[in-house]
Amino acid sequence: MQTHLLTIGDEILIGQIVDTNSPWMSQQLNLHGMAVIGKSSVADTRQDILDGIEYAALKADVIIMTGGLGPTKDDVTKKTLAEMFDSEMAFHPETFERIESYFQKVGKSAPPAMRDQATLPVKATILPNKVGSAPGMWFERAGKIFVSLPGVPFEMEYLMSNEVLPRLQARFQASPIVHRTLLTAGEGESNIARRIEAFEDTLPPNIKLAYLPALGQVRLRLSGTWEGELKPDAAARLNAQVESKKAELQALIPDLIFGEENDTLQAVVGKILLAQGKQFGTAESCTGGYVAHLITTVPGSSHYFPGTLVTYSYGMKEKLLGVNPDTLLRFGAVSEETVREMARGALGALQVDVSLAISGIAGPDGGTPDKPVGTVWMAVSDRSRTVAVKYIFGRDRLKNIQLTGTYALNLVRRFLLRQV
Amino acid sequence: MQTHLLTIGDEILIGQIVDTNSPWMSQQLNLHGMAVIGKSSVADTRQDILDGIEYAALKADVIIMTGGLGPTKDDVTKKTLAEMFDSEMAFHPETFERIESYFQKVGKSAPPAMRDQATLPVKATILPNKVGSAPGMWFERAGKIFVSLPGVPFEMEYLMSNEVLPRLQARFQASPIVHRTLLTAGEGESNIARRIEAFEDTLPPNIKLAYLPALGQVRLRLSGTWEGELKPDAAARLNAQVESKKAELQALIPDLIFGEENDTLQAVVGKILLAQGKQFGTAESCTGGYVAHLITTVPGSSHYFPGTLVTYSYGMKEKLLGVNPDTLLRFGAVSEETVREMARGALGALQVDVSLAISGIAGPDGGTPDKPVGTVWMAVSDRSRTVAVKYIFGRDRLKNIQLTGTYALNLVRRFLLRQV
Repeated sequence: MQTHLLTIGDEILIGQIVDTNSPWMSQQLNLHGMAVIGKSSVADTRQDILDGIEYAALKADVIIMTGGLGPTKDDVTKKTLAEMFDSEMAFHPETFERIESYFQKVGKSAPPAMRDQATLPVKATILPNKVGSAPGMWFERAGKIFVSLPGVPFEMEYLMSNEVLPRLQARFQASPIVHRTLLTAGEGESNIARRIEAFEDTLPPNIKLAYLPALGQVRLRLSGTWEGELKPDAAARLNAQVESKKAELQALIPDLIFGEENDTLQAVVGKILLAQGKQFGTAESCTGGYVAHLITTVPGSSHYFPGTLVTYSYGMKEKLLGVNPDTLLRFGAVSEETVREMARGALGALQVDVSLAISGIAGPDGGTPDKPVGTVWMAVSDRSRTVAVKYIFGRDRLKNIQLTGTYALNLVRRFLLRQV
Repeated sequence: MQTHLLTIGDEILIGQIVDTNSPWMSQQLNLHGMAVIGKSSVADTRQDILDGIEYAALKADVIIMTGGLGPTKDDVTKKTLAEMFDSEMAFHPETFERIESYFQKVGKSAPPAMRDQATLPVKATILPNKVGSAPGMWFERAGKIFVSLPGVPFEMEYLMSNEVLPRLQARFQASPIVHRTLLTAGEGESNIARRIEAFEDTLPPNIKLAYLPALGQVRLRLSGTWEGELKPDAAARLNAQVESKKAELQALIPDLIFGEENDTLQAVVGKILLAQGKQFGTAESCTGGYVAHLITTVPGSSHYFPGTLVTYSYGMKEKLLGVNPDTLLRFGAVSEETVREMARGALGALQVDVSLAISGIAGPDGGTPDKPVGTVWMAVSDRSRTVAVKYIFGRDRLKNIQLTGTYALNLVRRFLLRQV
């Protein structure tokens, strides 16, 4: 089964937004055993949409369109699809009720434009959008499937996960594919590759290993495909084969692996804190609250996280964390001495069992010859010990903040597990 | 003159990389008065490349390809182009010398594969690549131009800026295009549409308005194209026409507009704080440091931002911000009374002139009948006044945090400008 992704709208053609929808969709389709053979973008005019769909349908069995479905005037997608599939438009009460209740929940009434939004081609199967107003639409013609989704990323993701992928899987009897992902933090791609080289060389041809690097993390994904005859136990046997390779890989680099599949470092740290019955807080300088933000994205984090002190200035480091002014003067804010005092100060100030302190030079300015931009000191502390580590990241401010977040959470995890 | 961008290679189709080349190229072409009418991606096989070029050339005058030229790839792109343009391949000494001297500069000798890299279709005009090994190639046929560039971003950017754009400009007397974007916060797409309906109806046919929504923000983009005869003053006249429409739009919704083009709310707030010489801090509960993170993504924010108190627990709200325990007991943490006390407490605790306090129920749990998940109270305070506002967002934790960030920064902006 072959898919083509078609984005509709000027904002991609003029380069105003970077298309992150397509990579996400490609990955999801691949994970479900479906290939993407082409991608294209067209303007939101009737003719461009018609031509774009025609081109996509030349080779693909499934054409997934995104964009061009918002409530305002620049949207012609729906009408063009109705024309293409020779379909009347009609008011769709279920969709309107869903939109109305969505507005009611936030204490507003649905604006009049929402009636248009609920007016849909009758030949489409409507895919209910529970996280926004524009529903998805599913058309079929001559054995091909045409799906139209809103372009807002989380609405597209909701509809793909809950409507499109399950329907495609039910329709196409795909050969079993099994994916297992191990998550690592704190080591680069090439160093990991060196440690698992022998393992990689012994992988059977039907199991592939992919390195998926993100900031400070590398996901290792084993993908097994069934290459023999489609017997009833094929899925179970493939599963067992991939699980055994996963166990082998895990045993090679236990120090680097923090979780599996969709785990996040912040959720893993949260689980350990809950299990150990510990309260945790942060004292952040260069990360400016980013680590606290990560921690509090986890539902229920209030059970182990009372708060954070973002002490951007010298004054606040002294006043809120009790850092000694002499320490700041002698060693500077970005120093082992200062982060150690910050971490110990945070234990009392936030009344927690374990604390994390971070101080660094995020950039783009503020570096010196011995402390270049990207230099970050971090410390983790409890009542009995304090561990401090220095990293030197790069020159990009936002990237430095994000890398620091990853490395700091990983340091907390290893501290809690007494690996450091 | 109309352009089509074609990316070649599997890494985009399987979603392994996000395509940032195309937005950059689109922006550059637009700035030079050239429109991008389509974009597509194909796999790096001969047939896919041939079909992709054929589709692109249906409508475009200029087809710019990226990718499929590196030393480790099959040079299927190069051979397919040679085939398509009925061209011999030949060793190109200038290219080889350039590659050799490039390697010499970094103290290495050119690997053998580099002789292949310097073997090129004789019918191509070679575009010398001074920042990498693979040169660009420029073909012409039947009045259309076909350019092939390496996919490595800085190599592509070098060749576009130094070879492709100057040649295209010299060749085509391009019709001017002008884009102007106004950024709004705090109101949805359909409500904005209602307020500017009359304006939209009077737009001349050569100016289009697009709504580009993101979480809590909508960008309004006016795009003007010159449709008359290409007189010398065309660009200036189009510019004046779009500017005047922009001013009209601005006058209709001044309360919603916070900036233009690539501004961010956090940078705009930062500029106002700098201009007013004020220190600013936040006291955050449900956002868990997210607003502080946004503020500190701006370089130089340390000049107006000493810190933040993330007070997730009742205890920290009392201890760090001096919130009265009775207030918390009587009205709850998510209440007007509490955020007002948090904001006033933060003024002293952080020694700032202006403070923002936020307390809400991010979800997915913790809602009650009169305070559903998504309820957020926020307050901004200085020495003389405090403004508090309640919002009810949705059910998604991360979205609630992000929406709160946008609305809160916008409230701070309006408070500083005395619009609230």
